Amino acid sequence: MKLRILGCYSATPRVNTNPTAQVLEINNHLFLIDCGEGTQVQLRKHKVKFNRIKHIFISHLHGDHFFGLVGFISTLTLLTRETDLHIYAPKGLKEIITLQMKLTGSWTNYKLFFHELNAKTSEIIFEDDTVEVHTIPLDHRIYTNGFLFKEKEGERKLDLSKVEEANINVAYYRKLKQGHDVVNEDDVLIDHTKVTLPANPPKSYAYCSDTAYSESIIPIIKEVNVLYHESTFLEKNKNLTITTKHSTAKQAATIALKANVGTLILGHYSTRYESLNDFKKEAKTIFDKVELAKDGKLFEF
Amino acid sequence: MKLRILGCYSATPRVNTNPTAQVLEINNHLFLIDCGEGTQVQLRKHKVKFNRIKHIFISHLHGDHFFGLVGFISTLTLLTRETDLHIYAPKGLKEIITLQMKLTGSWTNYKLFFHELNAKTSEIIFEDDTVEVHTIPLDHRIYTNGFLFKEKEGERKLDLSKVEEANINVAYYRKLKQGHDVVNEDDVLIDHTKVTLPANPPKSYAYCSDTAYSESIIPIIKEVNVLYHESTFLEKNKNLTITTKHSTAKQAATIALKANVGTLILGHYSTRYESLNDFKKEAKTIFDKVELAKDGKLFEF
Repeated sequence: MKLRILGCYSATPRVNTNPTAQVLEINNHLFLIDCGEGTQVQLRKHKVKFNRIKHIFISHLHGDHFFGLVGFISTLTLLTRETDLHIYAPKGLKEIITLQMKLTGSWTNYKLFFHELNAKTSEIIFEDDTVEVHTIPLDHRIYTNGFLFKEKEGERKLDLSKVEEANINVAYYRKLKQGHDVVNEDDVLIDHTKVTLPANPPKSYAYCSDTAYSESIIPIIKEVNVLYHESTFLEKNKNLTITTKHSTAKQAATIALKANVGTLILGHYSTRYESLNDFKKEAKTIFDKVELAKDGKLFEF
Repeated sequence: MKLRILGCYSATPRVNTNPTAQVLEINNHLFLIDCGEGTQVQLRKHKVKFNRIKHIFISHLHGDHFFGLVGFISTLTLLTRETDLHIYAPKGLKEIITLQMKLTGSWTNYKLFFHELNAKTSEIIFEDDTVEVHTIPLDHRIYTNGFLFKEKEGERKLDLSKVEEANINVAYYRKLKQGHDVVNEDDVLIDHTKVTLPANPPKSYAYCSDTAYSESIIPIIKEVNVLYHESTFLEKNKNLTITTKHSTAKQAATIALKANVGTLILGHYSTRYESLNDFKKEAKTIFDKVELAKDGKLFEF
């Protein structure tokens, strides 16, 4: 599981800071999460292959999370993309994009599917053999979802020396890996747990931005390997979280602690602060495994 | 008259090239012309004061000329702008912007005026004491205007030694500068041309992008000081100008020659070419005073 931060600052794009966007690579999928202005340039800069992106998840309709989307969609058309593109976003985005395609006279030459979200409780919005994606309803000024990306339980692994010793026909190996007991060449039933090892534990990533402190997300993100939780402010500006419905670094860490996550990544920083290290310091008073998102940074888990 | 090129490449933004945008400073006005994705970052990079921009001119509704506008408008709101902003653009842009303001819940706290264009002949769209702006109907795949920025004739300048010698009351100096003859302290009528010098010749700038080769613009841009004319292609790819309705460098130079302009600036380059110098070389076979637009370049005239 790899996470590339393309932009992790709030509000407006600047010369050296980008609004929110990130790419999650999980089980061979490349998911684009949010798409602030300039995202397509950040994707180029970090050599992400546009064509590998087939699913885009937009948390909410504030500009710093989606103003780069119409340009990205339009660029894909110019690059003669043929692959389908799926967009999961709050209701309204389809109207914004299609109005612009109509007025610019630039319909896509690939299929564009909008999956408009308006549920207020967590739901599965994408699922295949290896991964599922759930929404995480967040508490922000407008309708907002975080996203939980979960690998599915994989196959068990053969314990090679033991499986050979057990004299099992190779044709049954797949069944063993899938957790079935099988009969060996001597007509003996072999317990699959004796000749296989457990599957790698499935990994999970929860993206929560933008949101006020909200304990209601804890059951959904419980024990994820990695939590990206916004920390727009430091505690000294906690009063600003009330009207803006953002969080402090300490609040993000409190959620990480209560949800017992593996690693907390902080991001969506207000540009009012001089040093990002203050965010880390503040979060570390509550929760130990804290990482700072930085534009361009690659996390591997 | 100063012209800052913010972006001068066609199609999609890239790591080192920006889509179209430029800032024209003329008679204390700061006009933003087109606003591709990333324009606000380019403005910051070149330290253009956002608040000095009161008028934005959008040539047409292709993404590389306006996808940066909604973000710029939204950033101005976050920066608590109070100054009015006027946008001159083809019909449709108002709908695009207001739909996004509605769905993002972010109305501007300053007054935003849309001047939607749909005339097929040249018209004056802005005028004050010192400057006027005319549209230049262009020939592109969708409705497109170039813009002609013209200084108005200024006041004549006093020829100080002569005006003192002529024994004229200081109260009449303004009338002299405005081109009126006045009576001096000895009751003699003084010819204003004897005691004043001609005003500085008014400057003019014509922006023509995007467009196919079109001689119909020549009467409008005749003898401008500076013409920015798109040159998306070189002659070796002239066939591409037919369906795309763009121009070659040679065609741009031909227009410059026939309109007898002072200087031709080339821009809106396709990114297929390795060197911009080929554009200059090609144009120079037809017209001598050719300059190449480059992202970030400042022209002073």
